[in-house]
Amino acid sequence: MRRLTIVGVGLIGGSFALSLKAAGLVREVVGVGRSQANLDTALELGILDQATTSLAQGVEGSELVLLSTPVGQMGDLFRQLRDLLPPGAVLTDGGSTKSDVAALARAHLGERLADFVPGHPIAGAEFSGASAARADLYRHKQVVLTPLPESSPVAVARVRQLWQACGALVPEMSPAQHDRIFAAVSHLPHLLSFALVEELARRPDGEVFFQYAASGFRDFTRIASSHPEMWRDISLANREALLQELEAYQAQLLRLRQMLLEHDAAGLEAVFATSRQARNAWLDKKKQALQPLPDAASSNRIAGNEVPDGKS
Amino acid sequence: MRRLTIVGVGLIGGSFALSLKAAGLVREVVGVGRSQANLDTALELGILDQATTSLAQGVEGSELVLLSTPVGQMGDLFRQLRDLLPPGAVLTDGGSTKSDVAALARAHLGERLADFVPGHPIAGAEFSGASAARADLYRHKQVVLTPLPESSPVAVARVRQLWQACGALVPEMSPAQHDRIFAAVSHLPHLLSFALVEELARRPDGEVFFQYAASGFRDFTRIASSHPEMWRDISLANREALLQELEAYQAQLLRLRQMLLEHDAAGLEAVFATSRQARNAWLDKKKQALQPLPDAASSNRIAGNEVPDGKS
Repeated sequence: MRRLTIVGVGLIGGSFALSLKAAGLVREVVGVGRSQANLDTALELGILDQATTSLAQGVEGSELVLLSTPVGQMGDLFRQLRDLLPPGAVLTDGGSTKSDVAALARAHLGERLADFVPGHPIAGAEFSGASAARADLYRHKQVVLTPLPESSPVAVARVRQLWQACGALVPEMSPAQHDRIFAAVSHLPHLLSFALVEELARRPDGEVFFQYAASGFRDFTRIASSHPEMWRDISLANREALLQELEAYQAQLLRLRQMLLEHDAAGLEAVFATSRQARNAWLDKKKQALQPLPDAASSNRIAGNEVPDGKS
Repeated sequence: MRRLTIVGVGLIGGSFALSLKAAGLVREVVGVGRSQANLDTALELGILDQATTSLAQGVEGSELVLLSTPVGQMGDLFRQLRDLLPPGAVLTDGGSTKSDVAALARAHLGERLADFVPGHPIAGAEFSGASAARADLYRHKQVVLTPLPESSPVAVARVRQLWQACGALVPEMSPAQHDRIFAAVSHLPHLLSFALVEELARRPDGEVFFQYAASGFRDFTRIASSHPEMWRDISLANREALLQELEAYQAQLLRLRQMLLEHDAAGLEAVFATSRQARNAWLDKKKQALQPLPDAASSNRIAGNEVPDGKS
């Protein structure tokens, strides 16, 4: 590839560029951003060869354009790219929600819709800036593609091939299925974690609780340190699937509350045992999936931090 | 101290013994347990100098007895110790819930109640066995004491002094306050984490969800790998405080659900921002609390694993 354009040069876009450069698959990377300071950092770090704040300049002569901006900016970008995207170029994105991105693309991309392949790299936070980018970020990670019926097979194959070159697994599903799955395994846990911390923080005697919180609390609430604006946007973008998951979870809490009210020791133990068994099986499968690959460090990363901490 | 007795030689009791030995505060440690294999391990590791499966033999001539068994065994132990505890000896425990332990002690210890000081070391899991014990487990950790009105000040001072010698901070509160605080910062998060995993595991298509779960899910659910029996017992032992916390949390979820239903972007962002800010302030305070102490490794341990992961 002669030229790749990254719109929004943060962890996601910067790592994609570094990884493809490391694989020798791209000659020149152009970055488009709103913050000159971040672009300068990306130039210094060798992520970018050129940087500009102009989308028109940035995509000129590009063969592939990755939108790794907040989803809130994508409608406007699609509107401009309808005319700016060079003939033959492929467009993809890295947004955390996919039905809304698909709808925006459909509304604004016009006849260039066939060249768009929506995607979601399951790795890290978008807002961490270019300095967080790493060539190996996507190694052993999943990058979900959610092609539209209109997406050209050639464009889909191209995007898949590039993510695979970054070391990623590249499953495909519909935007709706993507959003349903991530509502359950990512968006709901974020909501639950934020909810717990805020409920304690609002109490007049909240300080007392935090004072005794230990490592179990720390890990349960790690995602409650995530970016409020980003998670506001994700929650609203995936509102319907998230509401459905939230309702299922509320029903589950009612069930557990009933068990507590009835002193149902066997019922509680069964829930806890199923949970532990399912989680441990999931971890084992994750470890196995990494086993055949020679990268012991990543395998340890998954295995690490996993001593079940019954007490804190 | 000439002789210390540990009843239940796991992570909690074993680490207490190792730590006091390292501080040169105890000449001989006797372990009482039900599993000869675990006792043999503890002897080999130098945690114990003597081991027995007989409580009567184990406490003979002892100056301090620590009960670090599951709370379910404590009623029976108190009943026996009423007669077996040597005159002048102090009794303490390491159970995760305190009102129930206090009630059991009051029911069974008779005139030896004055020599009992209930405690809860906030560190690790009880069930990990002697081989997990470490002399530095309690360094910079909190060990909450919940003395009873009947506890003799001399006994409380003795237990406090020993935990401090292990490097721990030793706050005091009532059993009820302890249980209210830990219902919120430990017991409820465990219940919520178990609830999420089990709800997914029960679905006919549950496998699909686990397949895409990433690091945010992994940390949120780490405590869902905890021991089912132990958490069944804790949940029931602290049932009333846990139900109260669960109800407060259910109200919080209703509030968030309403925000989602009403597309209340500002409301959601405010909850998320308060949560993030409170959590980050908590982490900063934890780090500061460790700063003046020379152990850089522990300070890093708290600082580590803390890159907010907005996306997975």
